[in-house]
Amino acid sequence: MVKVAILGATGYTALELLKILLRNPDVEVTALTTRQEGSPHLSDIHPSMHSRLDLVCEDLSASEVASRADFTFCALPHVASMEAVPDLLTGGTRVIDLSADYRLNNADVYEQWYGHVHSDPGRLGSTVYGLPELWADRIPEADLIANPGCYTSTSILALAPLLANGLIEPTGTIIDAKSGVSGAGRKPRLGTLYPECNESISAYSVGNHRHTPEIEQVLSEVSGQNVKVTFTPHLIPMDRGILATIYPKLKQSVSEAEIMQAYRDYYAGKPFIRVIDHLPATKDTANTNFCDITVRFAGDQLIVLACLDNLIKGAAGVAVQNFNLMAGFAETTGLLS
Amino acid sequence: MVKVAILGATGYTALELLKILLRNPDVEVTALTTRQEGSPHLSDIHPSMHSRLDLVCEDLSASEVASRADFTFCALPHVASMEAVPDLLTGGTRVIDLSADYRLNNADVYEQWYGHVHSDPGRLGSTVYGLPELWADRIPEADLIANPGCYTSTSILALAPLLANGLIEPTGTIIDAKSGVSGAGRKPRLGTLYPECNESISAYSVGNHRHTPEIEQVLSEVSGQNVKVTFTPHLIPMDRGILATIYPKLKQSVSEAEIMQAYRDYYAGKPFIRVIDHLPATKDTANTNFCDITVRFAGDQLIVLACLDNLIKGAAGVAVQNFNLMAGFAETTGLLS
Amino acid sequence: MVKVAILGATGYTALELLKILLRNPDVEVTALTTRQEGSPHLSDIHPSMHSRLDLVCEDLSASEVASRADFTFCALPHVASMEAVPDLLTGGTRVIDLSADYRLNNADVYEQWYGHVHSDPGRLGSTVYGLPELWADRIPEADLIANPGCYTSTSILALAPLLANGLIEPTGTIIDAKSGVSGAGRKPRLGTLYPECNESISAYSVGNHRHTPEIEQVLSEVSGQNVKVTFTPHLIPMDRGILATIYPKLKQSVSEAEIMQAYRDYYAGKPFIRVIDHLPATKDTANTNFCDITVRFAGDQLIVLACLDNLIKGAAGVAVQNFNLMAGFAETTGLLS
Amino acid sequence: MVKVAILGATGYTALELLKILLRNPDVEVTALTTRQEGSPHLSDIHPSMHSRLDLVCEDLSASEVASRADFTFCALPHVASMEAVPDLLTGGTRVIDLSADYRLNNADVYEQWYGHVHSDPGRLGSTVYGLPELWADRIPEADLIANPGCYTSTSILALAPLLANGLIEPTGTIIDAKSGVSGAGRKPRLGTLYPECNESISAYSVGNHRHTPEIEQVLSEVSGQNVKVTFTPHLIPMDRGILATIYPKLKQSVSEAEIMQAYRDYYAGKPFIRVIDHLPATKDTANTNFCDITVRFAGDQLIVLACLDNLIKGAAGVAVQNFNLMAGFAETTGLLS
Repeated sequence: MVKVAILGATGYTALELLKILLRNPDVEVTALTTRQEGSPHLSDIHPSMHSRLDLVCEDLSASEVASRADFTFCALPHVASMEAVPDLLTGGTRVIDLSADYRLNNADVYEQWYGHVHSDPGRLGSTVYGLPELWADRIPEADLIANPGCYTSTSILALAPLLANGLIEPTGTIIDAKSGVSGAGRKPRLGTLYPECNESISAYSVGNHRHTPEIEQVLSEVSGQNVKVTFTPHLIPMDRGILATIYPKLKQSVSEAEIMQAYRDYYAGKPFIRVIDHLPATKDTANTNFCDITVRFAGDQLIVLACLDNLIKGAAGVAVQNFNLMAGFAETTGLLS
Repeated sequence: MVKVAILGATGYTALELLKILLRNPDVEVTALTTRQEGSPHLSDIHPSMHSRLDLVCEDLSASEVASRADFTFCALPHVASMEAVPDLLTGGTRVIDLSADYRLNNADVYEQWYGHVHSDPGRLGSTVYGLPELWADRIPEADLIANPGCYTSTSILALAPLLANGLIEPTGTIIDAKSGVSGAGRKPRLGTLYPECNESISAYSVGNHRHTPEIEQVLSEVSGQNVKVTFTPHLIPMDRGILATIYPKLKQSVSEAEIMQAYRDYYAGKPFIRVIDHLPATKDTANTNFCDITVRFAGDQLIVLACLDNLIKGAAGVAVQNFNLMAGFAETTGLLS
Repeated sequence: MVKVAILGATGYTALELLKILLRNPDVEVTALTTRQEGSPHLSDIHPSMHSRLDLVCEDLSASEVASRADFTFCALPHVASMEAVPDLLTGGTRVIDLSADYRLNNADVYEQWYGHVHSDPGRLGSTVYGLPELWADRIPEADLIANPGCYTSTSILALAPLLANGLIEPTGTIIDAKSGVSGAGRKPRLGTLYPECNESISAYSVGNHRHTPEIEQVLSEVSGQNVKVTFTPHLIPMDRGILATIYPKLKQSVSEAEIMQAYRDYYAGKPFIRVIDHLPATKDTANTNFCDITVRFAGDQLIVLACLDNLIKGAAGVAVQNFNLMAGFAETTGLLS
Repeated sequence: MVKVAILGATGYTALELLKILLRNPDVEVTALTTRQEGSPHLSDIHPSMHSRLDLVCEDLSASEVASRADFTFCALPHVASMEAVPDLLTGGTRVIDLSADYRLNNADVYEQWYGHVHSDPGRLGSTVYGLPELWADRIPEADLIANPGCYTSTSILALAPLLANGLIEPTGTIIDAKSGVSGAGRKPRLGTLYPECNESISAYSVGNHRHTPEIEQVLSEVSGQNVKVTFTPHLIPMDRGILATIYPKLKQSVSEAEIMQAYRDYYAGKPFIRVIDHLPATKDTANTNFCDITVRFAGDQLIVLACLDNLIKGAAGVAVQNFNLMAGFAETTGLLS
């Protein structure tokens, strides 16, 4: 039995983690944390978990968590995460960190985009970026995984095959991304109040969204080039799902069939990437760990369309995928239901 | 009292036309048509009109309509429209055609995109394109107005100032557009069934949407250049609203402030164009005739964001705006409520 | 020109008040209040008002407001309202209070349901309850109007004709009501966060909703009997609209046609009550001041169905309807657009 | 390996059946039927099944289906189902029929409510009604199961403990039920077009919904009394979920705690019934086979609130629950993920 903890159990990602982990009979959830007083029962925080898991959420220190769990999913906000991770690792629990704190290689870049001095800069750069479709070999032995951002995964999975094959320019790519509201988290804010975002669409963080440097860093590493992208996120009136409509610059003329083949080759044997002929719809990936990708031409302009569930393949699902690889389970355990 | 008819009274656009026209005490609706049998009462087709307008919808010929109305809004599908318009004009009623049939200047282009031989090619080219912000001077005397498409209006209003001022290249612009479901009309289809499009986002007609040649034609005329765009529409789970996120290629370096000033100058005195500093949200234009526009830079990439209500400023609202100019009413009559 | 102020300009009701009042050319909005610092411009709080009204929202005292306005719409929360109203009235402005503070006749009942000692008990009982379909004669001369609650209006308008005509028992009526999320206000709370209430329906405040005593008080006055109801509200994933499905106990057998006639007689000449034959849908009343009502039988059980827009006929619309009567405008001014 | 077929593979229920059945490694789907021409691939009909199941949907006769499958889920519309079931049974496949054709015991009642003469009346009455929480003992040996309706299950599960314990009157119960749009099926109709039912709530089939006699028949059998209910369904703008708010007449005074205990006793050991203290929300049961139930008092009026996912516990989930019992799998197989 593998013992697992979740730090930050009140959010949407933690709920999805629990739903997935409960499908694995060889996993036992041994600790859930919250800063709420009074050790609320899990089902008071997430009523859908009633009768599913009989646990309270406690205000535990990182070292207490480490003493209870072989693996810890850290679902804290950024900054809070880097304050907990060193103690978790010292305590001997292996960590999948779902925050942004260990994704960027460079502390200066982190500070520039997140507005905080990084308190654990020594681990930046050496932390494994947890995108199993790119680096499945690095993940099994890792003690700390930086779990990718949701927009980031969508964008990287859509663009990596093109960059790796030298089909597109490293700069000039436009990523027009659309996300459901759960991506904004469970903390009440005016902007995500129902009557504010229902029946509306708007762009936000135009030109300055924090997933931009993460996309660029990973794609640069994939391609060995200095990749730059224009990234524009939009808020869509739906619970979950991300669609990225991507406009890269082709280096030279290439057919749609050749590009599709490049995707199929690149993702051969990857169980969660579906290279499809039809246009993707987020609904077809909702509540799954799939990422659906296709391409189209509009005249000479290549358009890549990719979608996934931001809470699953964009967060909790890929986190469990990483966990499965680290713990020696089949990669798809709990993720094909 | 100005007598007005609506051909094709069962759709969403006709309903919005009626709501707007009822605000003008000097307008009388004298004919509504439908092909449904039995002359259903308007309130049987649109229950929201109960007690608002006591009229039946009749299966009338174009000439019968013409005999009853000084002005006719033709809200028929394409093809059906060009079969009715010649008789309407012959009958002496002035026409605002909300279909695509008279928007394109060239019968071959029409046939290529709409798959039908144009039956009234003599009027193409000479028909006035009803975008009052561009050609308010042509509209008052026109007998036939081609009312713009919804995506088209959004795209043109967002790009015209840049092209007219020579700030951007005529080619290479990417228009990533998002629309509510009412844009797909009121005819039951699987793709717009509630459980199909709710909680989902997807692109459609990628590389081949019929508004593409219309955008290119009008912007080419505005700029005196051969404009080409990449246009990608998306379906959003909401009733109404279009947001276009547009990525043009700047000719040379220019500041955000200079671009904003170009927009403000171009639309000075235009009551329905709001050049705003904040990021637009479709909700802020819902049920209004406003088009909200702003710009941002993401590094060197200019991004234009524009939104409007596809049923109002994108269809019925601009149609009444055209009607107001034709009939001698104030341009804003019925449109600022 | 009638000068008008709105206390509490940041909420959804204030926004609807402004939209309606702007349609009346004889009204001038002279003051808007907020407790937010820095006197934000109205369009910073409600972007949809951009270019519509050039005013800032100020932190004004009640007496300052009174000095600027002939009429004041008080859109403050309960408790805050009764702290402002006495000074408003002393200052000489007539008040339409949209809070619950002056709706109940009895200070003890107020304290029991709202948990606060009433600070202005002398005005309870003598304040005019602003439901023009019932008491249009009392409203024109009033200096203070208690504007009805949204659930309350729906329930009262649906039941008053039956009680007034002695057709139903005064007790045993079940009101199963469903409301859009805007009814919960614009303050961020977990329960009205988009991902919490989207794609879900639930009942709330079962057996203890504060509109219950208000419904009972007004219907008791209408019927001269001690009316008691069971009232169950539900939260529906939509912006606006209330539907009440009501199960009264008939006193004796009566036909559906007779009941419909009783409704038609009771509401003869009332421009905003539509007694309809088809089943009502909230959408048909959205953005209007209409209340749609019909009845059905299921066996011997009478069912009354009534709907309205909670922000318009359930709040801002009826408030302006009251204002129109008080200020000498036509009752429908601004309310039939 | 148990071989399973689905008749009528294009609907929402069939899709959910497939998702659940794929979780059981001992089940093989051997036939899917459709009347669409050309044997479309499953993923062309349900894109979300891409890469999940490599099967075509064929236009097969009932006997061909029977030859391929040990068990057949019949997800055809009513009438079509009773035309297929006799041949299925003759062919030796055991049948879970998800239509209404075998739910009612009496052919005259069927004809009265469904407007068709029943073509297989001999099986009415002897067919096992597939609600495992009530009759788990009858299901394992059955060759034909009439799978309950979605509203029906919700209503029966909420009321059976009260009737079985003699706590409420057999008549006078009001069931005010609310359902998501998927309950209306996948056939395009005006009423379930996105812009028609989005942002709206309305009642439908008031006094004459076909689930009424089914509720009454089963509850009469449960209680040994002649049960009559008033049942009012409503359409809610969400994909899935049913909430029933139920107002029974208590026979005598009883406490909330006693009633809750009656529920807990009645459903002891039933894995999918959650008797909860908090108010239920459909979201907490979405995509699960749970039915959540609680009770409240409003004064003397007892109110029962129950919810479930209409496509899972209300259709496909309970169907697989029945199948599990018939095929000798654990009752929860595939249903707790």
